[in-house]
Amino acid sequence: MTTPLDIITWATVYAHEHREQYLSELLDLLRIPSVSTMPEHTADVLRAANWIAAQMKGIGLQNVQVTLTEGHPVVYGEWLEDPTLPTILVYGHYDVQPPDPVDEWQSPPFEPEIRDGQIFARGASDDKGQMFAHLKAVESYLKTSGRLLVNVKFIIEGEEEVGSVNLESFCREHQEMLAADIALVSDTHMFGLDKPSIVYALRGLTYMEVEVRGPSSDLHSGSYGGAVHNPAQVLCEIIARLHDAQGRITIPGFYDDVQPLSEEEREQLAQLPFDEAEFRRETGVRRTWGEAGYSVIEQISARPTLDVNGLLSGFTGEGAKTVLPAWARAKVSMRLVPGQRAHDIAEKFRRYVESLAPDTVDVTVTELAGGEPAYVDPHIPEMRAAERAYEAGFGARPVFMREGGSIPVVGLFQDILGLRTILMGFGLPDDRLHAPNEKLDLESFYRGIETSIHFMGAYKTFAQPSHSSRS
Amino acid sequence: MTTPLDIITWATVYAHEHREQYLSELLDLLRIPSVSTMPEHTADVLRAANWIAAQMKGIGLQNVQVTLTEGHPVVYGEWLEDPTLPTILVYGHYDVQPPDPVDEWQSPPFEPEIRDGQIFARGASDDKGQMFAHLKAVESYLKTSGRLLVNVKFIIEGEEEVGSVNLESFCREHQEMLAADIALVSDTHMFGLDKPSIVYALRGLTYMEVEVRGPSSDLHSGSYGGAVHNPAQVLCEIIARLHDAQGRITIPGFYDDVQPLSEEEREQLAQLPFDEAEFRRETGVRRTWGEAGYSVIEQISARPTLDVNGLLSGFTGEGAKTVLPAWARAKVSMRLVPGQRAHDIAEKFRRYVESLAPDTVDVTVTELAGGEPAYVDPHIPEMRAAERAYEAGFGARPVFMREGGSIPVVGLFQDILGLRTILMGFGLPDDRLHAPNEKLDLESFYRGIETSIHFMGAYKTFAQPSHSSRS
Repeated sequence: MTTPLDIITWATVYAHEHREQYLSELLDLLRIPSVSTMPEHTADVLRAANWIAAQMKGIGLQNVQVTLTEGHPVVYGEWLEDPTLPTILVYGHYDVQPPDPVDEWQSPPFEPEIRDGQIFARGASDDKGQMFAHLKAVESYLKTSGRLLVNVKFIIEGEEEVGSVNLESFCREHQEMLAADIALVSDTHMFGLDKPSIVYALRGLTYMEVEVRGPSSDLHSGSYGGAVHNPAQVLCEIIARLHDAQGRITIPGFYDDVQPLSEEEREQLAQLPFDEAEFRRETGVRRTWGEAGYSVIEQISARPTLDVNGLLSGFTGEGAKTVLPAWARAKVSMRLVPGQRAHDIAEKFRRYVESLAPDTVDVTVTELAGGEPAYVDPHIPEMRAAERAYEAGFGARPVFMREGGSIPVVGLFQDILGLRTILMGFGLPDDRLHAPNEKLDLESFYRGIETSIHFMGAYKTFAQPSHSSRS
Repeated sequence: MTTPLDIITWATVYAHEHREQYLSELLDLLRIPSVSTMPEHTADVLRAANWIAAQMKGIGLQNVQVTLTEGHPVVYGEWLEDPTLPTILVYGHYDVQPPDPVDEWQSPPFEPEIRDGQIFARGASDDKGQMFAHLKAVESYLKTSGRLLVNVKFIIEGEEEVGSVNLESFCREHQEMLAADIALVSDTHMFGLDKPSIVYALRGLTYMEVEVRGPSSDLHSGSYGGAVHNPAQVLCEIIARLHDAQGRITIPGFYDDVQPLSEEEREQLAQLPFDEAEFRRETGVRRTWGEAGYSVIEQISARPTLDVNGLLSGFTGEGAKTVLPAWARAKVSMRLVPGQRAHDIAEKFRRYVESLAPDTVDVTVTELAGGEPAYVDPHIPEMRAAERAYEAGFGARPVFMREGGSIPVVGLFQDILGLRTILMGFGLPDDRLHAPNEKLDLESFYRGIETSIHFMGAYKTFAQPSHSSRS
């Protein structure tokens, strides 16, 4: 008689034997420059969506659909084994960050190259490779036993890198289709190959643009400099007032709703295998910096922060051009922690920046994107299935950690679908997400597939089915 | 018998009758994108130099030569009428500023278009059109009388917009060739067509680049934000400390060598036909800004200033990219007044910026260009020839003013050739130098030619020959 363990084992063996095929398919996906923030890549984003849908159909998923939104499409597919079994909703995204600065890449961002056991390509880790591991886990089951041990639904979106702007309405309009017992997201990183990590808290995001407009066109700095307030100077003076000397953010009310860290949690965070010297080596900084009174790991995961993401004004080419620029622009984003709300922070930012603007210029503050912070109680039973799966896939007991990045969908799933999310990432800390030379560890990709096989196999044991799947 | 007045009159009539030809030739020159700051335009800069040389030969100048330098070439030509006559050294430049932002031009920057009596093109006013007026003045003499009333030498360079970096060595190596009694430069503006202006003081320039380097590559602001000092933030904090709340520059020692304005000169400056409402309309600013205690005209011409000319860091495209940038760069330039020295100010700037740099980042300060301020006593007799010429060309008595811009050559001529410079500009305040839609008033171009004819005609009367020309 076939036991669940047999089914899991066969799938695992199959996955191992088909590593080359799985990798080759991932490389095909990585060749599609599905940059969601850049209008010139719209066709590529659509191509990636169709590629995913074709994959889903190829491995045998049912009800596969590419749904157009006002932005980029959402791809859905499912395998409903048995209505009495619990259902896992796997989320991922097929869109990627822009590759610039392109000339800092060692190999072209959309021509994946394997060097030293790493897959170098934009999107390798964030999130194509991680998301793809779950599809390959399902394929490994279906190709061996023709069945799964749970119900699985996939929702793979194309707008994560632009703040998942159309996902909310998609979720509202497809609540029944998306009904599940738990959400599973792999879009985070682990401490190391031997230190898998389950993320129980994510930072939210508020992304703003500040534009300072002065004279109606660029002026000669010799003829006008000294009597026309320089917009680039004004912008710098505004940005300089967003932090105090202790690295705290000075926006009035910014910290009002921050849930303070408990002593217990601070102690746990201090136990994490975080190596500050390694952090400095990896980032190339001589010395870390941040909010006074908090450790580095607290600063990057459990405390809200503010970063300038971009500056542009005037002449930026080679040499000297004596221009007094007509305008200056900055992109500024804030990472939020549980308790804070994205739009509320955007408004506080706007009011503060406007209060700093002198009346010699026009300052415009625009909210470009946002996502809510998230927190999932690490003591719920579903977390045990994830622990078990990591132990099987990576041979090590996972640690529990907070993640500094933002995955807006986690808050969305909570708010709209009433779903908690298990964040089981396969990335590594040096994957260089959003930066040149992004990569995914090949071993991590393969182990991720096996971990997913084990999570899908172990989940039933821990979870109580609460929703029936599609009736 | 032919009198000098006949010669002047014939030249003037000829210039009037050949306006169309002269304009058409200027448009040809304006079509050459001789942008000296941009390496991709090197061939165009050379083309412009050869075009000028061909013009010089065509109108009959002698000893025409295009001298290559380590940068762009210098074009020289002369007409030595009589060694007992005084010699005017006419300086101009054929290089232009970059045209960006190109999309803000109403007509393409290098396809000159005449609208409402204005020639729109990059370089129309700065300095091709103004410089060209003197060549056409000489042509008008030679085509009518076959002679001039003074000796004239032309030195037309191609690096004014990059700080005339190779002109100093050129002047040192060609002191005999360039020997003259006075220098004449038209690269400034007048108050208006009916208010010609003689500039007796120019600001100098120190142009710096500040680069802040943090992490070794761009990082994900979610994973690292909060513990890695953001280079764009650091750059803004440095720039914010370059001015105090009264608009004064905070660089230690910056004002030490500034020659204070006398009460007499402040009164004269206050008498100039400067209209602050018009200044606001022209620049499009709601309110002027600047160093407390000084009038707008003092701020833009007689006081030293500091402007941010450009900012660049991180992601500057459309939308949101959550990057923590590896570096941030600013271009910052200072306008200097008599008493200050360009390199001394560069060093003071460097020391101050370095003192503001936190030890979490690397800050590099580079001196990109510089030029000394200049002052020519408005009471010398040569100024009377210029007054007379303007009265003839523009039908109005000129005012004496300081100019906020920098013309490094004026300091150079003083230091190396012992020459005083008469700054007799034909530009207008709204010519949009260094900005989109630069233009030159057509009337101003024609009157400039006539003014030059009269200056060359009247100069002998006022000047005492002190140098013999080429022996």
